[in-house]
Amino acid sequence: MKIALAQLNYHIGNFEGNLQKMLEAVENARRQGADLICFGELAVCGYPPRDFLEFDDFIRRCQASIQALCQASHGIGIVAGAPTRNPVVEGKDLYNSAYFMYEGAVIGAQHKALLPTYDIFDEYRYFEPARVFRPVEFKGHKIALTICEDIWNVGNDNPLYTICPLDEMRPYRPDIILNLSASPFHYGQARERLHVIRANVARYGIPMFYVNHVGAQTDLIFDGGSIVMSPDGQVFDEMPYFQEGLRVYDLAEVLRGGQQREQPKEKIALIHDALVLGIRDYFGKLGFRKAILGLSGGIDSAVTCALAVEALGADNVRVLLMPGPFSSEHSLTDARQLAENAGIQYDVVPISGAYDAFLNALKPLFGDRPFDVTEENIQARIRGTLLMAVSNKFGHILLNTSNKSEMAVGYGTLYGDMCGGLSVLGDVYKTEVYALAHHLNSLPIGRYARRGIIPENSIRKPPSAELRPNQKDSDSLPEYEVLDRVLFHYIEGRRGPRELVEMGFDEALVARVLRLVNINEFKREQAAPVLRVSPKSFGMGRRMPIVGKYLS
Amino acid sequence: MKIALAQLNYHIGNFEGNLQKMLEAVENARRQGADLICFGELAVCGYPPRDFLEFDDFIRRCQASIQALCQASHGIGIVAGAPTRNPVVEGKDLYNSAYFMYEGAVIGAQHKALLPTYDIFDEYRYFEPARVFRPVEFKGHKIALTICEDIWNVGNDNPLYTICPLDEMRPYRPDIILNLSASPFHYGQARERLHVIRANVARYGIPMFYVNHVGAQTDLIFDGGSIVMSPDGQVFDEMPYFQEGLRVYDLAEVLRGGQQREQPKEKIALIHDALVLGIRDYFGKLGFRKAILGLSGGIDSAVTCALAVEALGADNVRVLLMPGPFSSEHSLTDARQLAENAGIQYDVVPISGAYDAFLNALKPLFGDRPFDVTEENIQARIRGTLLMAVSNKFGHILLNTSNKSEMAVGYGTLYGDMCGGLSVLGDVYKTEVYALAHHLNSLPIGRYARRGIIPENSIRKPPSAELRPNQKDSDSLPEYEVLDRVLFHYIEGRRGPRELVEMGFDEALVARVLRLVNINEFKREQAAPVLRVSPKSFGMGRRMPIVGKYLS
Repeated sequence: MKIALAQLNYHIGNFEGNLQKMLEAVENARRQGADLICFGELAVCGYPPRDFLEFDDFIRRCQASIQALCQASHGIGIVAGAPTRNPVVEGKDLYNSAYFMYEGAVIGAQHKALLPTYDIFDEYRYFEPARVFRPVEFKGHKIALTICEDIWNVGNDNPLYTICPLDEMRPYRPDIILNLSASPFHYGQARERLHVIRANVARYGIPMFYVNHVGAQTDLIFDGGSIVMSPDGQVFDEMPYFQEGLRVYDLAEVLRGGQQREQPKEKIALIHDALVLGIRDYFGKLGFRKAILGLSGGIDSAVTCALAVEALGADNVRVLLMPGPFSSEHSLTDARQLAENAGIQYDVVPISGAYDAFLNALKPLFGDRPFDVTEENIQARIRGTLLMAVSNKFGHILLNTSNKSEMAVGYGTLYGDMCGGLSVLGDVYKTEVYALAHHLNSLPIGRYARRGIIPENSIRKPPSAELRPNQKDSDSLPEYEVLDRVLFHYIEGRRGPRELVEMGFDEALVARVLRLVNINEFKREQAAPVLRVSPKSFGMGRRMPIVGKYLS
Repeated sequence: MKIALAQLNYHIGNFEGNLQKMLEAVENARRQGADLICFGELAVCGYPPRDFLEFDDFIRRCQASIQALCQASHGIGIVAGAPTRNPVVEGKDLYNSAYFMYEGAVIGAQHKALLPTYDIFDEYRYFEPARVFRPVEFKGHKIALTICEDIWNVGNDNPLYTICPLDEMRPYRPDIILNLSASPFHYGQARERLHVIRANVARYGIPMFYVNHVGAQTDLIFDGGSIVMSPDGQVFDEMPYFQEGLRVYDLAEVLRGGQQREQPKEKIALIHDALVLGIRDYFGKLGFRKAILGLSGGIDSAVTCALAVEALGADNVRVLLMPGPFSSEHSLTDARQLAENAGIQYDVVPISGAYDAFLNALKPLFGDRPFDVTEENIQARIRGTLLMAVSNKFGHILLNTSNKSEMAVGYGTLYGDMCGGLSVLGDVYKTEVYALAHHLNSLPIGRYARRGIIPENSIRKPPSAELRPNQKDSDSLPEYEVLDRVLFHYIEGRRGPRELVEMGFDEALVARVLRLVNINEFKREQAAPVLRVSPKSFGMGRRMPIVGKYLS
């Protein structure tokens, strides 16, 4: 038997687009002699559809796509994910299902039992868990259909569910596991996925065909990396990361044993590739082509710019250089150097006229009160307004350049440098931004495919917002080397103050950093969506009270 | 037996404050001869604690509060909600529990079984559902402890769960139902709550003591309205809305029958009271006292201003009047009239200087391109920047004045009039804003406790953003009477395009409105938190894809 895995880039709610892509893959697989083709979880509507699922009309359209796939299943089995209405009045109204279609009919279906409801996942919001488990018989094989999380209770120190769907199917003696996933990327995910698949293959002693989505849906990036694992626990094949693909596997070969055919999983390279795809799909799926951003001469905007140029092309990235009263000489020269290295359009728009106008307008109210954060924020907000104005006039999307360290401690101006449709680096700590810069400088980027696109001086100089004379980030924040480690253990690790002090961090520093994180929830509430590359990103995956009074 | 219900205003994560409040209530109830006092769901930490629950340190502090309440339970039973660690490794790590304490010990505990995971609720994100059900025996009574949603599967046409906790307890023959709730307000909630309590009392034939939270936690407002219902299905008592309270009930009297002692539930009056409490608690719990907002002379900012004056006092509300190049004469006179009616500080800060400065700065880029939405947005963003500047300099929080109709269709400028720490009217449709204005004008408000605070002209004139010559809202939007009805059925009612057309709305209008709602998700993503007063508010309770392509 030949099994095809289709690793596709779906678009949430774009039923026509998704269906067309799937039908093309069916034809392609058929031409390659496949007996069966497998698509991902909720493939017909894209993942995550979120509250679109609450609309009857949306479910109707999902079912129409399943009908169309059914029609295409003559001579080839098709497995695809879609929501199903729950016929029982008690319980949630929907199931998250895998449909098995063949010869124009649905010959089997399995609902998902383990419904991830943590981090960015909200599945129990919509779906009733499966209580019936049964493999589907196809061409002499018993195929255990599972959906994403269904296999994640195995090989897990802290299992979140009290059952294992594959345990329930054991009495029927399945000989193949199929898993339809929509498993979002973070830099550790490919490794964890492999561990979980291996634990399942070891436990049940049969091969697994695991097919994932690829492509970005706003903040969530799906990395692909679909896997076929032989019963010996070796990888038979791992499909590419961050690209669509269709591959056909001969079951007999898979059963003979794997080949440890894995791809490298280097963290910074993965983050880089994820961010490029995240930018590209955000624009592509919204129907935009052109990005704008402000270049300050600093590292964050330089890295964001380089990534945007890779994602959209030099022709589609435009930057503004907006010197202010406290800008250093190098801020302009470093920014200009980057723009010229990349070969992108840049304009210098000084903020001084608007800055003076604001100060004049406010003079009657402010009197002789001293310069403070107010005037710093005015500068940042003028820049935000200028960028938005150019974006409005010419049809760009503004890219936000804040990094995760800044977002964490609130070191940024709401409606100023926090403006933007998409936050590119909001899940990348400052220390990781430097690593990304070095990685980017090793690649040929921009109009001239030049290496070393980011000026050395942008990497080497001490970080500064340049909103008052001789300002440095280190005036108001701990050194990033220390700050980032505290933030990582607090945000990703969920360690409390006592545990952090036990790890050796200074008690006053811990209290100060945790307080900054917690009192700045109100700013993050209004931040742009953040491309998620870590296991715990700001946004949907981290839900914190704003008026809470805890460690604050 | 005498049972006290304590309807308190908790503060999420403020363990010291919550505990002190609860201990005072215990002493108060003891003085009044109560045998038992009941607090709300997760009372020790406040509701909803969200991802604070993922921190061991947070759970430790919850348990310390339970210890302290235990110590206070000599001679009086205390029932209070707190999270409990799940000792079993499989399943979620926590339970959402009701603790029954007496004579220094925990004499019973019941975990919550029905975990709301829809709209603003995320409980299955954190909690394992109860599988064991048993009443607690206390002074000769068998008390069925239930937590909020546990009673909501009864009297419900679309039950979300496959079990009813009180059905499970039936074999033990409980004679009292206690319900610890944290049930957020919307204008229909008090009525629905009564319906559900009555359905339970009818089904089980025993009295119910239902205690709710009161007070606002950012977007969520808890209205109190705790209820004692006699076995005859009549209300024995309903505690006040939007106020803390402690009342002691004699069980023997409750058993004799209810008295239909209900409060009025008029929609606009409830919304009004909810918004005032929502503003007051947002400021109080963040440790702020002073609000600022922009007065345009229009109805939205006028209503927001009047509500702020009620919530914070005339001394604590400051407004800016910011005339621009296209402002009408009446925009200034109407706004000034309101400020004078209310007796609040106001300043006129023209935007023309900053506007000219922006146009000059952008002239080299824009050339002779015609005036468009760019220039409109610049005006709105100058106003946002001025308001934020005054707020930064003097320590105000900026109140956002956008209404739900505007937020729905994206009729507002991101980083402009969408600025603010809290959206007061973001869950109030434009047509409801008018009703609120009339209600407000019937109340004595402001420094001079004057009725008719909002100028008639602000109510009567056609709505306009005044960002270009002779602009009217109706130039780009359907009349609000129609728009609001389509929006209501789409947002609150989750009707799709086909159903809306079947209801009699024009097909092209429906397509246009739904498209506007869906393509403006990116703006709402960055909006201020919205005080929730309807069953479906923008924010946590409505989760929509940004790059989705559905009805868009």
